[in-house]
Amino acid sequence: MYDVIIIGSGPAGLSAALYAKRAMLDTLVIEKMPLSGGQIINTSDVDNYIGMPGVGGFELAQAFRQHVDRYDVPFKTANVSRIEDNGEYKTVIIQDGERLDTRTVIIATGAKNSTLGAIGEAELTGRGVSYCATCDGGFYKNKITAVVGGGDVALEDAIYLSRICKKVYVIHRRDEFRGAKILADKVKALENIEILWNTTVERLNGSQRLESVEIRNKLSGELSTLSLDGLFIAVGTVPNSTVAQGIAELDSGGYIIADESCKTSADGIFAAGDVRTKQVRQVITAAADGAFAVYSAEKYLAEMSF
Amino acid sequence: MYDVIIIGSGPAGLSAALYAKRAMLDTLVIEKMPLSGGQIINTSDVDNYIGMPGVGGFELAQAFRQHVDRYDVPFKTANVSRIEDNGEYKTVIIQDGERLDTRTVIIATGAKNSTLGAIGEAELTGRGVSYCATCDGGFYKNKITAVVGGGDVALEDAIYLSRICKKVYVIHRRDEFRGAKILADKVKALENIEILWNTTVERLNGSQRLESVEIRNKLSGELSTLSLDGLFIAVGTVPNSTVAQGIAELDSGGYIIADESCKTSADGIFAAGDVRTKQVRQVITAAADGAFAVYSAEKYLAEMSF
Repeated sequence: MYDVIIIGSGPAGLSAALYAKRAMLDTLVIEKMPLSGGQIINTSDVDNYIGMPGVGGFELAQAFRQHVDRYDVPFKTANVSRIEDNGEYKTVIIQDGERLDTRTVIIATGAKNSTLGAIGEAELTGRGVSYCATCDGGFYKNKITAVVGGGDVALEDAIYLSRICKKVYVIHRRDEFRGAKILADKVKALENIEILWNTTVERLNGSQRLESVEIRNKLSGELSTLSLDGLFIAVGTVPNSTVAQGIAELDSGGYIIADESCKTSADGIFAAGDVRTKQVRQVITAAADGAFAVYSAEKYLAEMSF
Repeated sequence: MYDVIIIGSGPAGLSAALYAKRAMLDTLVIEKMPLSGGQIINTSDVDNYIGMPGVGGFELAQAFRQHVDRYDVPFKTANVSRIEDNGEYKTVIIQDGERLDTRTVIIATGAKNSTLGAIGEAELTGRGVSYCATCDGGFYKNKITAVVGGGDVALEDAIYLSRICKKVYVIHRRDEFRGAKILADKVKALENIEILWNTTVERLNGSQRLESVEIRNKLSGELSTLSLDGLFIAVGTVPNSTVAQGIAELDSGGYIIADESCKTSADGIFAAGDVRTKQVRQVITAAADGAFAVYSAEKYLAEMSF
């Protein structure tokens, strides 16, 4: 019987592992690949994790994992099929059928960005193509960028980038924004933002880095080429919350409902990092969740008199 | 007119400065001493800020500040006397009378630990005396420690330390705990915890490090010596929230009421780090607040159409 099983080894899961082991909890981390770090391993540069300026994403992931390894935390590479909530204990069931009993579970399985599915998108991600303006906007000072999307995040990204970039296009497939009117009005009013309505991105061009995108006007059918230094895709995110289905309450987007305490609707089950309902999904906020989830788990263990 | 004035330069304030400047907000940080880092500058070792294992507190503070300095954020050394909330703009008034106008304020002034006021306490802090079991407990594996206090935090600390240490004394001046009954019951049940009721700490002994404490039984008046490797003082914390008085709502302990969004009851004024109502006060959670406070400030600026 473990005290805590942590599912996921991104910044939230690794920080939880560090805090759990420092608290001498009997801990296991289950990661789906034999490589820790989560989404950051695919990020070229991270310059907003304070104290580690200009670190590469892969390098940061390694530093996180090495820190945890100083505490001899056991890791297991496996896919979790489901969690059984047996009240005073939980069972984590692995794809091969193995059953692992634990007092608490911290779900830190993260989220993934929705993609456009456009030609060249995968190849140029991290090389001019980004899914996070707050993370990567700083690299585009006085450059020309575009945001794809029409929701709150796309509008916030466009406003954010308008302060940094010379020019920002907003490429949206409809003729109105889905996001809040107040943000939409702001985007429309900003002089260095140009909105391309009824427009889709068909193809991304560039050999070493993104150079341009081919866009199609849906009304006229016309194809044209837009030269860009950066493309920010903000068409939604999808949480990796399958294991929580039927166990803890999810919101309409599939995120596990939990505030900063990381407590879910199920006693003894906690959600940390990008997989929970939260507004700011950054390395630093995910890592903070790891600390908070362990605090909440410890409190639960103490109160249950385990 | 600044976009944001950040008051305080601990982990929350510095992380906010990093995020604010990356967002190209016109930013000023006001710190009371010409030395950034807040409480961590007095911490010998920090081993729970993931990615930077075994770093010294002073060294971590320097790394944080150097990271911010790469972004040319202006710092000003001054004491803030008060904040005027003029609705669409705020005025931060410095002790010498200077008035600084800003659209938003992030209060990141931190908190300080209440002390016992015992002889030797100040001298041995960081050398066997700690105010944070979660931070420093890991350094006392199989050692003998004591917790002073009787509230929730003292009880949580004792339970936490009981998993790490050979023996944990709980020194409490009354004959019952003020903390939650469920935690008190747990503390009483744990075999390696011994409770010293009606007992106060009179003096801390040790030349290089803490060696023992002199304790007094308040009923008998008897003085005795207790050999200890570590003493954890958990008799409360005091937020540095004077500047928020009359501006934003405070809780009964003086903390600025704000959830993880860092929004206070006053529009455009945000509270980040140890000064706000929160349960986990760690470097990583404070730094996360810095990111969140800037996100909330940016959203406010966008919605106000500044």
